[in-house]
Amino acid sequence: MRVTVSRRAHFNAAHRLYRKDWTDEKNNAVFGKCNNPNFHGHNYELIASVTGDIDPETGYVIDMKILKDIIKEEVEDAFDHKNLNIDVKEFENLNPTAENIVVVIYNKMKAKLESHLDLEVTLYETPRNFVSYSGE
Amino acid sequence: MRVTVSRRAHFNAAHRLYRKDWTDEKNNAVFGKCNNPNFHGHNYELIASVTGDIDPETGYVIDMKILKDIIKEEVEDAFDHKNLNIDVKEFENLNPTAENIVVVIYNKMKAKLESHLDLEVTLYETPRNFVSYSGE
Amino acid sequence: MRVTVSRRAHFNAAHRLYRKDWTDEKNNAVFGKCNNPNFHGHNYELIASVTGDIDPETGYVIDMKILKDIIKEEVEDAFDHKNLNIDVKEFENLNPTAENIVVVIYNKMKAKLESHLDLEVTLYETPRNFVSYSGE
Amino acid sequence: MRVTVSRRAHFNAAHRLYRKDWTDEKNNAVFGKCNNPNFHGHNYELIASVTGDIDPETGYVIDMKILKDIIKEEVEDAFDHKNLNIDVKEFENLNPTAENIVVVIYNKMKAKLESHLDLEVTLYETPRNFVSYSGE
Amino acid sequence: MRVTVSRRAHFNAAHRLYRKDWTDEKNNAVFGKCNNPNFHGHNYELIASVTGDIDPETGYVIDMKILKDIIKEEVEDAFDHKNLNIDVKEFENLNPTAENIVVVIYNKMKAKLESHLDLEVTLYETPRNFVSYSGE
Amino acid sequence: MRVTVSRRAHFNAAHRLYRKDWTDEKNNAVFGKCNNPNFHGHNYELIASVTGDIDPETGYVIDMKILKDIIKEEVEDAFDHKNLNIDVKEFENLNPTAENIVVVIYNKMKAKLESHLDLEVTLYETPRNFVSYSGE
Repeated sequence: MRVTVSRRAHFNAAHRLYRKDWTDEKNNAVFGKCNNPNFHGHNYELIASVTGDIDPETGYVIDMKILKDIIKEEVEDAFDHKNLNIDVKEFENLNPTAENIVVVIYNKMKAKLESHLDLEVTLYETPRNFVSYSGE
Repeated sequence: MRVTVSRRAHFNAAHRLYRKDWTDEKNNAVFGKCNNPNFHGHNYELIASVTGDIDPETGYVIDMKILKDIIKEEVEDAFDHKNLNIDVKEFENLNPTAENIVVVIYNKMKAKLESHLDLEVTLYETPRNFVSYSGE
Repeated sequence: MRVTVSRRAHFNAAHRLYRKDWTDEKNNAVFGKCNNPNFHGHNYELIASVTGDIDPETGYVIDMKILKDIIKEEVEDAFDHKNLNIDVKEFENLNPTAENIVVVIYNKMKAKLESHLDLEVTLYETPRNFVSYSGE
Repeated sequence: MRVTVSRRAHFNAAHRLYRKDWTDEKNNAVFGKCNNPNFHGHNYELIASVTGDIDPETGYVIDMKILKDIIKEEVEDAFDHKNLNIDVKEFENLNPTAENIVVVIYNKMKAKLESHLDLEVTLYETPRNFVSYSGE
Repeated sequence: MRVTVSRRAHFNAAHRLYRKDWTDEKNNAVFGKCNNPNFHGHNYELIASVTGDIDPETGYVIDMKILKDIIKEEVEDAFDHKNLNIDVKEFENLNPTAENIVVVIYNKMKAKLESHLDLEVTLYETPRNFVSYSGE
Repeated sequence: MRVTVSRRAHFNAAHRLYRKDWTDEKNNAVFGKCNNPNFHGHNYELIASVTGDIDPETGYVIDMKILKDIIKEEVEDAFDHKNLNIDVKEFENLNPTAENIVVVIYNKMKAKLESHLDLEVTLYETPRNFVSYSGE
């Protein structure tokens, strides 16, 4: 019986979409107002979904406290109240689009989960725009 | 790395569930109060989810402005503040159940997306009732 | 100790904004796409808020079952799956704007509540547009 | 054309996480404050998602009234305003974790659905913690 | 310039509506299924709203960290994962209706706020039922 | 009959809480992680609530299109995808706390509304923290 267990979390961050190796004109043409050099920001909402068998001893797929701690260490402590472009090393040379952020979060969290567990991460950049990634 | 990018939109419309080729009795028996001949209506909420590879140049699966424009042209301009049974040609001979509406929206949007992109459409008829279709 | 007790409910309806005594041109100029002669519709969400003293016997301001029944009889049975302009007598000669609907609902519900209780009604026409009225 | 039709429902219940065959110390170590011997409780929110072909006659995958009735009989009447550990026979010897509850609900509902229909059940224990199961 | 600052929080608890000094028949007649002797439960959502002048030094009405700490000490630590009837002394002889709970929370929090600040507490027993109290 | 008409809107922005005339130590002590010199950000959600008499001609308190346009010009065009500290002149010498932002928005919008209309503005900095101001 494979059950998916999901936990919602959130962090606030500033970011800017642009590539250092492009001209201002090209950055503006492609990224529009998301390229504001003074940054803008979001309340990111995250859903981490872990799939595995129910442990017949505990009735848990994963202890929610373990999942909460992984989210706290890998996502909240790393990204909350940060400027993604300046303060987070993963985005030093990677454009912090929602797509790239969700892949970074997936990779950080997957490395901390027991290997028999599957992971999907959904990231809301706004209540209207969101992305998801499951390592495929 | 296949990532899913989702965009939420909405439209308001009137509709009535019935078949022209059925008697009033049969329409009432099958569709109940949804068969009110004077129509009723909904705030439809839509989630369009596009899956594809991240473009390493931009960090996008699809530019959200392109997805917004497709939703605007194919869904909002076509259905918003309309009577689905009378004003929308796709439902001239098709009962506008949530199931049929979501398939119509999927087909209209899929035709405008680059062919390497997958699409899933979720349509909320009310916050409690919703349907989804991914072309399978 | 005056406490406010609120109950959420919903109904789906079709409507059209227009005045019979105006020309088509004037109706279009003032009400725009809300004047579609074939109607459009909404999922109306309602919050009825009743304020009064806590009954020291029961610990209730009002038994929630009584409030639910009043909402059912005065709002849901009267408006759900209806065309407000055609099927609801209060709007025979009254334009069913959100403002006018909330006043009609307030008056219907207030008449059924014990007179020492205050009432406020909030009506969501969409998740983004809503109105409220408390009899002032 | 396989479409998924989803219906949202809810029930309120008390529960306690523990195993009768464990010591108090072990129950506390594993289940923490969820092991309060006097119970705690939740507003459980449920999404039942049924996948099948659209019936070309009605435009329905399943009549929503049938789905509502199955949810009412198998979930709401059985669990609402109950103590899951004491009042619900399925949890007499099964720890009522969210994972175990969602499997019980899936099995009860699946038995009432026509066999050609697939089912997925998502259960929110809180707005931040939820589980889902589709019989795999 | 009087501004209202609101903070949302939550706790899970079991409870039962009844009066020790009433017969079972009377408790059942008045409180219905909320009188289950084995308890039921809720995810209570709380909004604490503090009104006062903006401090021109900080731009704050109240430091949100102070408000968070008061909510944690007076509400979350006291009520979360508890049985309100058994584990919480305020309800030893007070029926834990939503109305009575919101007054108890108001009184506990008001005593910890600087006296020039006004307080309103809104308590959601379910997403559909909620109460509020501001000390009037 | 005084009715309140509310409209929801949103904007994304970066900001930093600090005072230029304070030392880094004092800014850190008072504003904590909100004082990140590289900024962080939010999806601000706004509710503008306008109270007035229903115009018996139109059934409107205010034409929602007028309210939408005022929000667009005074709030969205001014703040969306901006750095509040750097790009918005009102915060050149004013700390952009939620309290100060809501007062600035109130003043900008009130100046554009007909004088007989009352205004209240509620601003969500996150889904858990929000402020409101009505000019009192």
